[in-house]
Order: sequence, then structure tokens, then C-alpha cells
Amino acid sequence: MSDVLKTGINQVRNVGRFNIGSGAFSETANLIEKKRLSAEKKGDQIGIVFLVDHFFREHKGILSKLNCLQGDAVEFIETDTEPTTDGIDMLTLKLRNDGFTNPAAIVGMGGGVTMDHAKAVSNLLANGGSAAQYQGWDLLTLPGIFKIGIPTISGTGAEATRTCVMTNSDTGLKLGMNSDFTVFDHVIMDPDLSKTVPRDQYFFTGMDAYIHCIESMAGQYRNAMGDAYCRETINLCRQVFLSDDMQNISNRERLMVASYLGGCAIATSYVGLIHPLSAGLSVVLGIHHCIANCIVMGAMEDYYPKEYDEFWEMSDRQGIVVPKGLCNDLDEATYNALFKAAIMHNKPLTNALGENYQSIMTIDRVIDLYKKM
Amino acid sequence: MSDVLKTGINQVRNVGRFNIGSGAFSETANLIEKKRLSAEKKGDQIGIVFLVDHFFREHKGILSKLNCLQGDAVEFIETDTEPTTDGIDMLTLKLRNDGFTNPAAIVGMGGGVTMDHAKAVSNLLANGGSAAQYQGWDLLTLPGIFKIGIPTISGTGAEATRTCVMTNSDTGLKLGMNSDFTVFDHVIMDPDLSKTVPRDQYFFTGMDAYIHCIESMAGQYRNAMGDAYCRETINLCRQVFLSDDMQNISNRERLMVASYLGGCAIATSYVGLIHPLSAGLSVVLGIHHCIANCIVMGAMEDYYPKEYDEFWEMSDRQGIVVPKGLCNDLDEATYNALFKAAIMHNKPLTNALGENYQSIMTIDRVIDLYKKM
Repeated sequence: MSDVLKTGINQVRNVGRFNIGSGAFSETANLIEKKRLSAEKKGDQIGIVFLVDHFFREHKGILSKLNCLQGDAVEFIETDTEPTTDGIDMLTLKLRNDGFTNPAAIVGMGGGVTMDHAKAVSNLLANGGSAAQYQGWDLLTLPGIFKIGIPTISGTGAEATRTCVMTNSDTGLKLGMNSDFTVFDHVIMDPDLSKTVPRDQYFFTGMDAYIHCIESMAGQYRNAMGDAYCRETINLCRQVFLSDDMQNISNRERLMVASYLGGCAIATSYVGLIHPLSAGLSVVLGIHHCIANCIVMGAMEDYYPKEYDEFWEMSDRQGIVVPKGLCNDLDEATYNALFKAAIMHNKPLTNALGENYQSIMTIDRVIDLYKKM
Repeated sequence: MSDVLKTGINQVRNVGRFNIGSGAFSETANLIEKKRLSAEKKGDQIGIVFLVDHFFREHKGILSKLNCLQGDAVEFIETDTEPTTDGIDMLTLKLRNDGFTNPAAIVGMGGGVTMDHAKAVSNLLANGGSAAQYQGWDLLTLPGIFKIGIPTISGTGAEATRTCVMTNSDTGLKLGMNSDFTVFDHVIMDPDLSKTVPRDQYFFTGMDAYIHCIESMAGQYRNAMGDAYCRETINLCRQVFLSDDMQNISNRERLMVASYLGGCAIATSYVGLIHPLSAGLSVVLGIHHCIANCIVMGAMEDYYPKEYDEFWEMSDRQGIVVPKGLCNDLDEATYNALFKAAIMHNKPLTNALGENYQSIMTIDRVIDLYKKM
């Protein structure tokens, strides 16, 4: 195995605890109460920081269900753009200035973007410094603030992984804080929360779990644990996306499990060719991670042929239109930027293509692939 | 769902961290060193308690690999008989008397029996009292001593579950300390450690994972997470036991993963009919848990017909002889004792057969089943 891939993922930290199933969300208030009481006992801050997907801005009832009290911090997270190091730093500074230097807990309720915000802010409040300092592997020295993840859409696996992805505002590098301390202490998975997700978004996000796992299973870095998680994640995605009603309650619960297990899989393995190319689309063209993955997937017939067919079968079955032609007619500088943003991801590219990936993924080949998307 | 099955397993505590793969065992010494240093820093006891399967009594090199130093406690655990509450109490008392009231860590290295000893002793040192007090659900109030599990044989899932099974010396009840605090903080899974397991024992123990999961999948208490873990565990067991060489390195690693995931499955579900009948064989006739399961499995054609066939296919393929005729010719008192020891397990029996299980599993029916074994 290439040394590039030896980054400590032989040791895995699990999510501390989880609840799963319809109605699980109702247990959140009690959990938060416990954190408050335990902080009070220790003479620590009793305020809670709630980072909530902006979708819930119009659903304020959600805050009382979360046991949000006067004196807590509530920030609605915009998810149109993906997290940047500057954005994370600004949010952390705001919370600090509002007195939340050591809150009793941080709750991230929403999709991958919101949960990644919660993970990053938790780390920064405890470790100090700025987000960019910790982009990489195992650079944090202190456990973060106790953090609770409540996914409201399924697929990214952010609820289970040891990373929180962000784009470096200076360098453009899309890389997370990979650390045991980034893992949630508690995750609440309630399929009732993903009922209102629009069909397209449900599909694109869900496919992130599928794509993670097909990449891992085709990679050079393999182990029996990662393989097991991947196989079952792919199996669940097939059940959901090859069914007639991908969004019924059973399928929403299955996809929640797939997302979690897909996250566990990623914690013991690497992605492959799709994620680097997708990162290019996100960083250069501002396309959201999950739809970008699907756009790339639609050009992968040479690299993941069987899964390429299955992907189109799934999108056909669900009547989902994957955008096409986005990179047909860009200028040279943009193509160069796409290439640069993709090729910098040496670990997944090594996992997919070996140490000599640069001789395979030449600039011409990469631009050709983008033109197919 | 029956109220009997509502015992808090909607919230799951995961194993804190794990290492997986050939060579993972070499990381143990470092982990133990860290626990020592951290205890020293806090002014706590720096001694470590090692509970090691008696098999390693003749392999003393193992102790230096475990970073065992003068001043640590080493107890070799006899595994011919299963843990009893009195045995656990005695061991705990001995450790206390030797000064290990709050060791820096407890290591359990061996099979299910040894790991269950480590879990129980960890709980008792921290919570005081006697083992029988905590047989049941969520009766412990304090986290146990930091505990590390190192399985050297695969199947029981003890490395991943929230229980440690023991037989009550007074009442004969076989029941564990079911608690979040019973879960290992760190598990090291190295398939090199299961190389020397005798073929029979490897098969019987491995089948525990398979049997757990087929029972759960046929039960009334189901959820998408438990199902996912079960499906992949069964899949891995098939790969191992329907192959030509169940004990090659890849299959040993697969079975280690199956055992762990099977344990995770049990943490979110219940067993069924096989385990109660098997408990009867253990409690009354002293038959070891895993072989007892297989003996019961061989009489399950009416209850798990597909899996019954597959079980015999697996044992045939591996050339394993499952004992037969053990309960042909017992006296009435023994049959009554078997019935009593089996029927007291109301949760798994409710899961398998519904709330009226007693009208199905009559004494005549149960004795008939035992006579088939």
C-alpha cells in the first residue's frame, strides 16, 4: 500500500451514542437537559449552541422541541454555499463574542453542511486558532465541545465521519479537519425529519452514500470492516433507489442507516476518482457537493462501468434529471482551475489509480471528463 | 410491539474506538502506555489489570507485548465453565485486596468469557456491590474502569455488546449487566490472534454471530439499523463458512468483523428462540454457550427452516460434527430444569413468538425439542 494512504485510519473512533427510528427526535430535549444539568453541577456554562439548517427558520416550533431556552445561541446555517474556513472562523468569533466560549453542548441539525459547521465550531471553540490551521489529519489536540448531530437529510454521512469538509478561502483547497475529535458524541436519526426533503435533493444527497461506497470498494486501500460497511450501504441504497417510492417511511429510515453506515465506511477507507472531480465542480463552479457527485458519476462509464449503469437505472426509476453539459464550453482558465482543484486530492486519487495517478489523470484527460459532464 | 421489549435499546452506545486488521495488536502497548501516563498525570493508580484467557498461560511473551509491567495485575481466566456471579465477585474482591481499586485500565484478552469478565469487573470496581445486583437492564450508575477488549476468537460479539453474560449462582438465571457502561472503550481486532483456534471451536464460536442475526431478523422487534448489521453479519458468515478454508487470514478477518457487527446488531435488537434453549443447556448441563447454540440450531427445522438447512450445509462443508443425542435420556427433574431455565427468558421468547409464547412453548413442546438435540 502506498505511504500516502497511511494516515492513521487504522484506528477508528465511533460516534459515541445514537438513537434510531421514527420518534427518536423526541428524545433530544431530554438529552440536552442532561447536558445542561451536568454543566451546572460542574459550574460550567449552561448555554447550548444550536446550529440549524436555514430551512427551519420558518419552523420555529422546532426550537422548543430542541429544548432551546432563553440564553442559548441559535444560528440558522445557509446551505446554498458550502462551508469555507473564513465562514467557520466568523461564526466561531460571533459565538465567542456572545459569550459562548465553552457551551454545554453544540447541536447541528440539518444536512452535511450544517453538521459540518457544528463539528468545526466545536473543535475551534475548544482548540482556539482558525479553521485553516486544522485542515488535514490529526492536527487538533483537544476534544471539542460535546456535540449532537441531528441529520434531516441522508447521504453525506457527516453524522458518522471524522471530518468536516470546508474550502480554504485562500488556497481553494477543499479539505476537512480529519480527527477523532471531529466525531459526534451523540447522533439522533429520525426518519420523520427527512419527510419534507424535495425529491431531487433527496436523490442527489442519498447518492453520496452510494458513491462513497462504490469508490471505496474499487480502491486500493481495503479492509474487511470498510468492505462490510460499504456492501450494506450499497445494498440499502439499492433497496431505496430501485424501489417505486424512494421516500416512504421505511425507505427514509433505510437511507438514514445507509448514510450513517456509509460514513462509518469512509472512516475506515478512502473515496476514489469521483470525489476529487466533484470537488473541482464545487470549488470552481460553486456546485453543491451531492449534485456535483452525481454530475461526475454520469461521466464515469470508463472507471466504474457497472455502477455507472446502475446509477442511471436508479435516476431513471426515480425520474430524476441529472444536469448535463455544464462544462461543455468553459474558457481555458476555468478548465485549468478545474484540473488543479481535482488533481490536488492525492489520497483518493492514489486510492483509485495508484501512486502514478498523475500520469493517468493528465490535464487533457481530466478536461475531457469534465466536457462529458 | 410488546412492552416487554421496551428496554431502552432505542439508544445505543458504540464501542469508543477500534483498531482492525492484521498487526493491529501491536498498537496495544502504546494505548496502555497512554492510559498509564494519563493516570499518573491525574495522580490516579497507574496499575493495569490484565484478564487473559488461560490459553495464553503458556505464551508468556504475550504479556510483554501487552506492555504488562511489574505492579500490574495478571489473572488467567479459566474458560471451561461460564462466568458466574460468585466467580466475578471473587475475582473483583481479589483485585481490590491486591490494591486495584481504581486501575488505569482493564484489559480483557480472549473469547467471550474472558471479555465478559473484564466488563463485569470494570463495572463492579467502579460501582461497588456484587455482580447479582446488576443483572438486568441499566442498573449501573457509574461508568466502569476504562476497558480494552482484545478478542482472540470470533463470534460471540462480546467485544461490541452492552452486556456481560453470567449465571446467577443462587437462582440459576443467566443474565448480563445490560448497560451503556458495559461497552468497551477500545477494541483491538487482529486476525493474527485467532490463528491458533482449533477448528471445532472456531466453527462453533463463529456460528454464534450467525445465530444471533438469524434470530433477530426473524423477530418481532425490528429496526433498520439492526437489520443492516444482521444482513452483513450473515453475509460474512456465509463467505467464511461456505468457503473451502474457513480459517485463512481473510476469513479470520471477515469473521472478526462479523463478530463485531453481530454484536452491534444485538445492541439494537433481541435474539429469539435458540438462545433461551441454549441457555438451558448451559445452566443445567454445563455445555459451553457456543456449542450449545449449535446443538439447539440442529433441532430448529420447524422454527428457522431455511437457516437450519444452511447451518447443516456449513457444518458439512467444514467437516464439523455437532454433538447429538445429549438430551435423549435424562430424568424428569432434569427435563423440568431445562424447561425452567429456557422459559424464563421472556424477552427473546416474546421477540420470537409473541407475548403468548408460553402457550406455544409448553413444557411438552420444550422437552420434545430437547430430545431432538
